[in-house]
Amino acid sequence: MKTLIAGVDGYLGWALALRLLSKGHQVIGIDNFYTRKAVKEVGSDSALPIGSFHQRIRGLPKDKMSKIALYKADVTDYGRLKKIISKYRPDSIVDFAEQRSAPYSMRSRETASHTLSNNIIGTLNFIYAIKEINREIHFLKMGTMGEYGTPNFDIPESTFIEASINGKTDRIITPKYAGSWYHWSKVYDTDNLIFANKIWGLTTTDIMQGPVYGTRTSEITDSRLFTRFDFDETWGTVLNRYCVEAVLGMPLTPYGSGGQTRAFLSLEDSVTALSLLLENPPASGNYRTVNQFTETYSVLELANIVQERASALGLKTEIKNVDNPRVEAETHYYNPERKILPGLGLKGPTKNLKDEIEVIIKDLLPYKNRLEKHRSVIAPKTNWRA
Amino acid sequence: MKTLIAGVDGYLGWALALRLLSKGHQVIGIDNFYTRKAVKEVGSDSALPIGSFHQRIRGLPKDKMSKIALYKADVTDYGRLKKIISKYRPDSIVDFAEQRSAPYSMRSRETASHTLSNNIIGTLNFIYAIKEINREIHFLKMGTMGEYGTPNFDIPESTFIEASINGKTDRIITPKYAGSWYHWSKVYDTDNLIFANKIWGLTTTDIMQGPVYGTRTSEITDSRLFTRFDFDETWGTVLNRYCVEAVLGMPLTPYGSGGQTRAFLSLEDSVTALSLLLENPPASGNYRTVNQFTETYSVLELANIVQERASALGLKTEIKNVDNPRVEAETHYYNPERKILPGLGLKGPTKNLKDEIEVIIKDLLPYKNRLEKHRSVIAPKTNWRA
Repeated sequence: MKTLIAGVDGYLGWALALRLLSKGHQVIGIDNFYTRKAVKEVGSDSALPIGSFHQRIRGLPKDKMSKIALYKADVTDYGRLKKIISKYRPDSIVDFAEQRSAPYSMRSRETASHTLSNNIIGTLNFIYAIKEINREIHFLKMGTMGEYGTPNFDIPESTFIEASINGKTDRIITPKYAGSWYHWSKVYDTDNLIFANKIWGLTTTDIMQGPVYGTRTSEITDSRLFTRFDFDETWGTVLNRYCVEAVLGMPLTPYGSGGQTRAFLSLEDSVTALSLLLENPPASGNYRTVNQFTETYSVLELANIVQERASALGLKTEIKNVDNPRVEAETHYYNPERKILPGLGLKGPTKNLKDEIEVIIKDLLPYKNRLEKHRSVIAPKTNWRA
Repeated sequence: MKTLIAGVDGYLGWALALRLLSKGHQVIGIDNFYTRKAVKEVGSDSALPIGSFHQRIRGLPKDKMSKIALYKADVTDYGRLKKIISKYRPDSIVDFAEQRSAPYSMRSRETASHTLSNNIIGTLNFIYAIKEINREIHFLKMGTMGEYGTPNFDIPESTFIEASINGKTDRIITPKYAGSWYHWSKVYDTDNLIFANKIWGLTTTDIMQGPVYGTRTSEITDSRLFTRFDFDETWGTVLNRYCVEAVLGMPLTPYGSGGQTRAFLSLEDSVTALSLLLENPPASGNYRTVNQFTETYSVLELANIVQERASALGLKTEIKNVDNPRVEAETHYYNPERKILPGLGLKGPTKNLKDEIEVIIKDLLPYKNRLEKHRSVIAPKTNWRA
């Protein structure tokens, strides 16, 4: 199998590349190296040091090294994108090359505009490239469970759903209600892909993924293979941020009351899920929507678990709820369906959350001094209401 | 009342400016004059000759002339947009400054990309300008009934609607299912505005308008005040196109079987509706969704009516269904709700459709030679499936 990964230098991109290589697949990676720059711009850095992309590739065994090609490219540059896809004619394309931060998108008009246009036009370019080069290429779009918001209905794992409205029944696109420009940009990608599927039959897997946590996968066995790990208010996700807070002896900071329930999964399970979906594409011309997560927790529950595991490792931490910078319900119903990945063999979390937190903290501890420098970028400063 | 009209040089923009001026209101007009250029690019022109914008203003009586200001500006240029809005601090803003053609959006990757980014970023710029300058400005967004597609439920005139999904009930954003990149861009504007309303309380009227037809309003009483009138496959709307076909002795060309039912209104009723909505804004912080139309017809029914009226004027025309270039249902349920505008006083169509068609044809006849030059741009060439 030949897979093009856009955003191969990122948290998931690199981890997925390693998994696909270890399964003997061929990888074509593209990246514009935007995240490295953007994280530095907010005064932060990856908690775990990572080499340049070429250093990383040179760290691989020879047989794997020969199976990965890298291009510096921006997905909004259609000419270049089309050239690379035409050259390799991959079986599948995974798109991680999107602006991926909700707080970044809410910072200013400029960041909102960049998020919407970068993400929408990037996906549109893939749509046209696939349509023009080979309509059989399987496109995997990385979306987010955040596209749904927190509805009162059970979040179905399906592109369309039957709904009854004022006494009449119709098959509608599964309703979405996003909570930031970033999340909306993902909804628009979804709608554009549904439309492209309708008119051109593009084979699509639309992944609604929950926040990912963790430092390790079966392939990331030593520090030379580390994937990036962000923890600042802009680029970090909640559980990773808690772990850094614990290492630094800072209070764990759930936003608001912490009752926000989300669907999580470990980095290991994320790359397992992605490979399963790539190796088992939908039938040609089909559109498959997948809810990609293994467990649901409230962000306060997670803080409690991190506190307990940190304590077992001799790290004392408090939990200190901070004013919620976001506009979101802190008490709500949440029941997403999860059938497709278990059907493909991903039965549940393959690692215990508590053990995984211990692994993360242990991985971070040697870099405590590195993290100290970035204390000030962890607390939320981007306010949705401002 | 002081109103900024973005896209003041367009079909609706100019007609609305005349109406507001005649009611004693002040108008600030902005335009980038893109439509004039884009229509020429497809080898077409306005069926009715129109002067430059400054010529048009000079055609107005002095008291009106002093109440309109014009700026050449592009809504995607945030700095300039903000400067103009800050200078005038209007009570309301009407946004017609969007790429408005579905076929244009479907022509190529470039036109798709231009449509999505121009429309989404333009609206985003208005959102931020209003948020930063004065959150009390009433924003009127021109959307389209095409955002809904052709659902099996009665299209409600409301931003949110109660839906029952797998036995659970929720209040969801009224479902949309657009049929072109253009129509999707309008859906995304809607969602972005709903989000801006939620987090910043922006006062919004979201107009879902059907295709408009006609050459005249109470203010357009002589040819010096004509608004533009497009009829080519890209920029024309269906009824206006039929009238030009009748004048040229060409067959009227419903797409496919012609069973596509849409919601229509005359130019006169469109500007009446818009003034009513501007003069009666929603309560501060509210989001109002309006279905703006007066009647529904299938496109074949319209062809029959045009044929009959043309015949009464001595113009013989055939009806010749052409292959449908679009991907759309040709037989479907269609029942949009219509309460808000009647509640404000727009009870029904103020002019009889048949009479209005006669007015259009009579207005076009003196320009038959002008139209002859553009025969070749009427038949559809942009195919959704291509």
